[in-house]
Amino acid sequence: MGQAAPAHELTVEWGDCDEAGVVFYPNYFYWFDCGFQRLLRAHGLSQRRLRERFGAVTPLVEAAATFRTPARYDDVLTVAASVDRWEERRFRVAYRLSHGETVVVEGHEVRAWARLDAAGRLRGAPVEAAFRKLLGGEGD
Amino acid sequence: MGQAAPAHELTVEWGDCDEAGVVFYPNYFYWFDCGFQRLLRAHGLSQRRLRERFGAVTPLVEAAATFRTPARYDDVLTVAASVDRWEERRFRVAYRLSHGETVVVEGHEVRAWARLDAAGRLRGAPVEAAFRKLLGGEGD
Amino acid sequence: MGQAAPAHELTVEWGDCDEAGVVFYPNYFYWFDCGFQRLLRAHGLSQRRLRERFGAVTPLVEAAATFRTPARYDDVLTVAASVDRWEERRFRVAYRLSHGETVVVEGHEVRAWARLDAAGRLRGAPVEAAFRKLLGGEGD
Amino acid sequence: MGQAAPAHELTVEWGDCDEAGVVFYPNYFYWFDCGFQRLLRAHGLSQRRLRERFGAVTPLVEAAATFRTPARYDDVLTVAASVDRWEERRFRVAYRLSHGETVVVEGHEVRAWARLDAAGRLRGAPVEAAFRKLLGGEGD
Repeated sequence: MGQAAPAHELTVEWGDCDEAGVVFYPNYFYWFDCGFQRLLRAHGLSQRRLRERFGAVTPLVEAAATFRTPARYDDVLTVAASVDRWEERRFRVAYRLSHGETVVVEGHEVRAWARLDAAGRLRGAPVEAAFRKLLGGEGD
Repeated sequence: MGQAAPAHELTVEWGDCDEAGVVFYPNYFYWFDCGFQRLLRAHGLSQRRLRERFGAVTPLVEAAATFRTPARYDDVLTVAASVDRWEERRFRVAYRLSHGETVVVEGHEVRAWARLDAAGRLRGAPVEAAFRKLLGGEGD
Repeated sequence: MGQAAPAHELTVEWGDCDEAGVVFYPNYFYWFDCGFQRLLRAHGLSQRRLRERFGAVTPLVEAAATFRTPARYDDVLTVAASVDRWEERRFRVAYRLSHGETVVVEGHEVRAWARLDAAGRLRGAPVEAAFRKLLGGEGD
Repeated sequence: MGQAAPAHELTVEWGDCDEAGVVFYPNYFYWFDCGFQRLLRAHGLSQRRLRERFGAVTPLVEAAATFRTPARYDDVLTVAASVDRWEERRFRVAYRLSHGETVVVEGHEVRAWARLDAAGRLRGAPVEAAFRKLLGGEGD
């Protein structure tokens, strides 16, 4: 099991909703991505520090979401994010956004581990053990 | 088999890219949604006309994408959209964005058919036959 | 003088920045708009309550910003918002986003007061005295 | 007088509108920025070529818009962009978005000319004469 970041909250803003008065769905993926950034921050990392410390970036391979209940302007959503699957060269981050007890959206991102080679090009590589350990994936 | 809309083109703009110089991925879902709107328009429909003509809307149930190749500022992408699956109360729209011969992203949306009841609440309902026929799904 | 809402903080996210590694500027206007929503909330209001309580909306007439210092991914910005000018049918909301002691952006929105008439059309109208009082503009 | 790029068209998409059914205003600034990119392209340039050819970037100093008429989902807008003022170290780009004969938004961006010094830092500099000439500002 992955180690979750502390859940954080966000308020659905006026500009996040469409004419039907519900969140325009690409915004949920923006919040997934923000959830990943917060997961990194919760473990002392960030995209920049990943690059400095490991010479690596985590390009997106896949993203998916299932929309359970519409969320509306002024709703306060709780975002839970955790790595729920480790593969040799990839990992999966699971997200759940809730409004009180109600699940709004569930989804995930699959991210690859990639290193910048001498020519500055990205090459897929095994996920760094230290990164995995940091995010709680050691006993997976 | 669904009937595709004529593919349309879009230019990746400066504001669509992130610090890594590639499209920030939630934008692909925005383009999926735009592709759905164009699919409707190509058949004489729109979200508003759906509501007027069928008293229905098409809420999103699921969305997913697989990212094949990064796209960058100034790239001209071709968007292909078609309904590739019809169920009783849902349909799936498939998307492919390409840069020349290179596939950039493939994905889909699952959309439900929902009618507004007297109280203005959405109720799932069987996909209207006329809608399905219009989008080329009659012999599915 | 207008009455400010308590300043709030936001973190610049990965998706808010462009290829140059700085905030893509339309996002500042999104944050201005969020600042207005928070100003309303800080006084027990929201776009929806404005409509319920006063039968009014506040359409945007003008928006402007001066960009002082770039902000970057992971920067925590403080947003200050207050109404700094009241006219008969309009009001101006001033915004300042700072990173520590450094001003990042200053700007404003001019918003009109408009009522929905019987036909559901917007008509400009004098700003409701109760609204002005609520936002601290009584002695202006 | 600046030289305009050929006007281009855009369709207001579902995701561009807010709950009131009109364009959420930060999107207009996104379209301003896209208009600037198209202005560059119309003269054989782009942000990347500016950097390659002149070692320069054009950071935003100021942006402003006046909102004349709301635009709605499915409206086709025409975007006109031209440089309407040249200063020693800055230039102003004027934008007008119209729906048929109706002006929707007018606004501008002020952009500085900045060169990357040896340390990779931006330094304000006089606008390159060749750039000004290319964009039609020679007899200003």
